[in-house]
Amino acid sequence: MGVVLNLEDGKRVAASIQDLVDLTAADMGRVNELILSKAGSDVEMIPEVANHLISSGGKRLRPMVTLAAAQMFGYAGDGHVKLATSVEFMHTATLLHDDVVDESGMRRGKKTARMIWGNQASVLVGDFLLGQAFRMMVDVGSLDALDILSTAASIIAEGEVMQLSAAKNLETTEDEYFAVIKAKTAALFSAAAEVGPVIAGATRTDRAALRSYGMNLGLAFQLIDDALDYGGSSKDLGKNVGDDFREGKVTLPVILAYRRGTAAEREFWKKAIEDNESDDAALEKATGLLTRHAAIADTIGRARHFGEIARDALAPLKATPQKAALLEVIDFCISRVA
Amino acid sequence: MGVVLNLEDGKRVAASIQDLVDLTAADMGRVNELILSKAGSDVEMIPEVANHLISSGGKRLRPMVTLAAAQMFGYAGDGHVKLATSVEFMHTATLLHDDVVDESGMRRGKKTARMIWGNQASVLVGDFLLGQAFRMMVDVGSLDALDILSTAASIIAEGEVMQLSAAKNLETTEDEYFAVIKAKTAALFSAAAEVGPVIAGATRTDRAALRSYGMNLGLAFQLIDDALDYGGSSKDLGKNVGDDFREGKVTLPVILAYRRGTAAEREFWKKAIEDNESDDAALEKATGLLTRHAAIADTIGRARHFGEIARDALAPLKATPQKAALLEVIDFCISRVA
Repeated sequence: MGVVLNLEDGKRVAASIQDLVDLTAADMGRVNELILSKAGSDVEMIPEVANHLISSGGKRLRPMVTLAAAQMFGYAGDGHVKLATSVEFMHTATLLHDDVVDESGMRRGKKTARMIWGNQASVLVGDFLLGQAFRMMVDVGSLDALDILSTAASIIAEGEVMQLSAAKNLETTEDEYFAVIKAKTAALFSAAAEVGPVIAGATRTDRAALRSYGMNLGLAFQLIDDALDYGGSSKDLGKNVGDDFREGKVTLPVILAYRRGTAAEREFWKKAIEDNESDDAALEKATGLLTRHAAIADTIGRARHFGEIARDALAPLKATPQKAALLEVIDFCISRVA
Repeated sequence: MGVVLNLEDGKRVAASIQDLVDLTAADMGRVNELILSKAGSDVEMIPEVANHLISSGGKRLRPMVTLAAAQMFGYAGDGHVKLATSVEFMHTATLLHDDVVDESGMRRGKKTARMIWGNQASVLVGDFLLGQAFRMMVDVGSLDALDILSTAASIIAEGEVMQLSAAKNLETTEDEYFAVIKAKTAALFSAAAEVGPVIAGATRTDRAALRSYGMNLGLAFQLIDDALDYGGSSKDLGKNVGDDFREGKVTLPVILAYRRGTAAEREFWKKAIEDNESDDAALEKATGLLTRHAAIADTIGRARHFGEIARDALAPLKATPQKAALLEVIDFCISRVA
């Protein structure tokens, strides 16, 4: 499996989500309408805060996955549009709360809502969006989908607390790191993918396939995100290189470099991560250490591993345009860093 | 309708919730077990934070209302225990987020969770409890109950944002104040009461009766709470007299005194509420103004008004011990301030 696709003429073209975008374009039009309508309220501050983040150009990967996963099994109703919108609202609510928890100033290249309207509004508008997400799920009326998404909501919060408890702890093991990203990121991808076959009335095997696809895609996605923080360009990611470093986040690149480092290097990481000695010079040194220990390359390697599991999860399913598009999403996620 | 009950011998005894406590004791035992089990997590910080608030001696009025309302219509299953626990978790999640939003230091006579574990943990553990609440509701499997409680979750958050938007605004009208407390407090009481008849399969009329009872009880409850902040004893309320004043909260007592006051008095209120000139001397002066303008007495009068509507909402229902207990809750709520 490659990060880039080989065309016949030998030119290499990066994977994209264009097929997924095209296949879900009509449904996403309805999702976007529903987003605007359900983020609405007579309380002015709610649509202001919600739309600030909603309109800030996220790719809306999660709702597209839900839509494609429902289409794949011939779903003909409109429940997938509501569930996809619920998934995006859950994600948006998480981002609003995350920015408060991380005290972040920027998100997707814009000031965070908390910098403009304050932590208070971010917490409460997040709560509102979560409430609206549940109302839409209830409206769809599938108890199985409700079960999957409400369980994901608990797990996401659990993952965030886990991350908070492990904050600035350089002794965090790779296993602990995976437990955190599985809960805080992969659980929602997994739920987003699984509710598609669920409302389409697909078999338990098909549900399990999409659930596994989503979970492993989510793990790969977060690993690449964490790698990008030390290597992507600020423009691509909508955040600055080194944000995680400056916030003292213990992500896999740091875990690997710390574990593989000398005693002196570990001292450096402790000062940087635990004591906030993380200026530009320190970032430059950190980047050098990550390279020396192949920490970014191996983080990407781990992502490829999960990407392959996601790919195999869909292997038994019959060939459809949706399946092909979902497979390309895996390559796209990984190619973001290439 | 009196705040106190007249016994035959002429002795006056304050209303209590003892009958409600007795009627729901067995079920509340199961609620309390479920609270402990569903607030559990391998992530240590979650039960620590959750139990700090859960064990801090709230009366658990809302879950008792749910249980009694289900019993009243002969409900025989165990769904009411799960719904009652969900209601209490929704309430606890709101308190955790409220304390962050209000930057509160004390709640029920104890340090708030945010003072011990930080705002971050309070936000995230609140999210976790909300997720767990939804999982329990889904487990009960009543889409009607899910609809009622998820709608309440959105409305509560909307009410909190409304309150935030109106913060420190002395021009807030009485109508605007009622819109806020209806959303942030009464909506959950209303939902807590209505889901009882809903899972018991009661008629639409019975559902409407309990919904109205809960809504009006909730309004009375919040009005008394706001009156108590200027007059109750610190011990009863678990918070200090004058907390709302020091936080610059524009509650009904202040709205009434401000609207009825002289130009000079309005200047005083502006300095106190908008410019935080709210030391002990200012609190003493404020209390004097509230008395002069009968602002506390009239706030209690408004509470009695809603209490009477709550009472009449249950009037058509046949006499049961549960009905009698729920009626006494109205008197209890109002007598807290007497």
